[in-house]
Amino acid sequence: MDDKDISNAVIARLPRYYRYLGELKNDRIERVSSRELSRLMHVTASQIRQDFNNFGGFGQQGYGYNVDYLYDEIGKILGLDHIHNMIIIGAGNLGQALVGYMNFKNRGFVFRGAFDISQNVIGKKIGSIEVLPLDDMPEFVRNNNIDIAVLTVPKTAAAGIAKELVECRIKAIWNFAHIDLPVPDSIKVENVHLSDSLMKLSYNLHRSEDDTNTTGAAE
Amino acid sequence: MDDKDISNAVIARLPRYYRYLGELKNDRIERVSSRELSRLMHVTASQIRQDFNNFGGFGQQGYGYNVDYLYDEIGKILGLDHIHNMIIIGAGNLGQALVGYMNFKNRGFVFRGAFDISQNVIGKKIGSIEVLPLDDMPEFVRNNNIDIAVLTVPKTAAAGIAKELVECRIKAIWNFAHIDLPVPDSIKVENVHLSDSLMKLSYNLHRSEDDTNTTGAAE
Repeated sequence: MDDKDISNAVIARLPRYYRYLGELKNDRIERVSSRELSRLMHVTASQIRQDFNNFGGFGQQGYGYNVDYLYDEIGKILGLDHIHNMIIIGAGNLGQALVGYMNFKNRGFVFRGAFDISQNVIGKKIGSIEVLPLDDMPEFVRNNNIDIAVLTVPKTAAAGIAKELVECRIKAIWNFAHIDLPVPDSIKVENVHLSDSLMKLSYNLHRSEDDTNTTGAAE
Repeated sequence: MDDKDISNAVIARLPRYYRYLGELKNDRIERVSSRELSRLMHVTASQIRQDFNNFGGFGQQGYGYNVDYLYDEIGKILGLDHIHNMIIIGAGNLGQALVGYMNFKNRGFVFRGAFDISQNVIGKKIGSIEVLPLDDMPEFVRNNNIDIAVLTVPKTAAAGIAKELVECRIKAIWNFAHIDLPVPDSIKVENVHLSDSLMKLSYNLHRSEDDTNTTGAAE
């Protein structure tokens, strides 16, 4: 499959399709038309068909899509037919929350190790995983076929740790630290910048208040 | 300021500009050119100028931008010159992590209340905030001028709580539950769908492995 030209916007929508199809599957719905999916997801049917055409279309429109098939195919595109071995670096509340999410495990994302520098958490367990000293991390990554490191450490520590991760040839970093990591392009990084998200919300909140005020003044 | 036509992509980039300008400010840099900012942020200088032109341009290019001024102006656009009163619903690890982020408070986002249904956490304190029973939430929102509710509850509980929030006229919801909330457009919602983010990372990881394999076969 040649998917190099598929836009980030399409990729970003795939998990949402996957989620809605999972719900249809749970409800034992066997087929769904792009029109029904459109109504559920509040996107246009033509957007759905365009998105799916990037991957060959997933079957005939007239009959609608086979839900199980479509769910599995999108899952494969998202790499969910693989097991991903993960570690978490930073075993604070956020780290603990992420390790605790059963949903990740159900989709093949399995935490194998947790690391921290604080004596308060080293030796403690998060679920079934013992928190180890950060110094043990490089060897652990090399010996346990770790694909993804999850970074839930303060901003000040993140760049140094990212450098170590590069050295032990991690493939991907899920980054919650509030910096852009200095890693080569060969390492995939997905950022969750929570402050940025909150500021976007704040922007939209004030824009709508400005609109309301403008309307008020015009009356 | 008429900013109705400013695209989501531009809005999404504003917090990142704000972050980099904050760092320049900390380093006591007084002026920065779009070229320097471009080098730091790995976006083109023309992209930066285009983005800033949406808001009037923020001053002359030849001299570069005044860092303090630009930082403050972008802060105002993001609504950061206001105090935002927030509550958190769901006092688990993720909720506790969010309440603990001092950075939010520094930018005017202040948690005033926390709510949960679990007897294990009701009555406990997160920082200086006591966790109250969810039943107390509507009155609290009405009496404390709450702008933003942060939803860190399981998917199954989220829609019902969102409905209550609509009834007590919340203005905005920062949603961490893994559903699209059924609320009217007048309420601003910003979603942080962690699973979606992890799946995007997985997609990019496998796409790059596919590329590597293809290259290998062609040799």
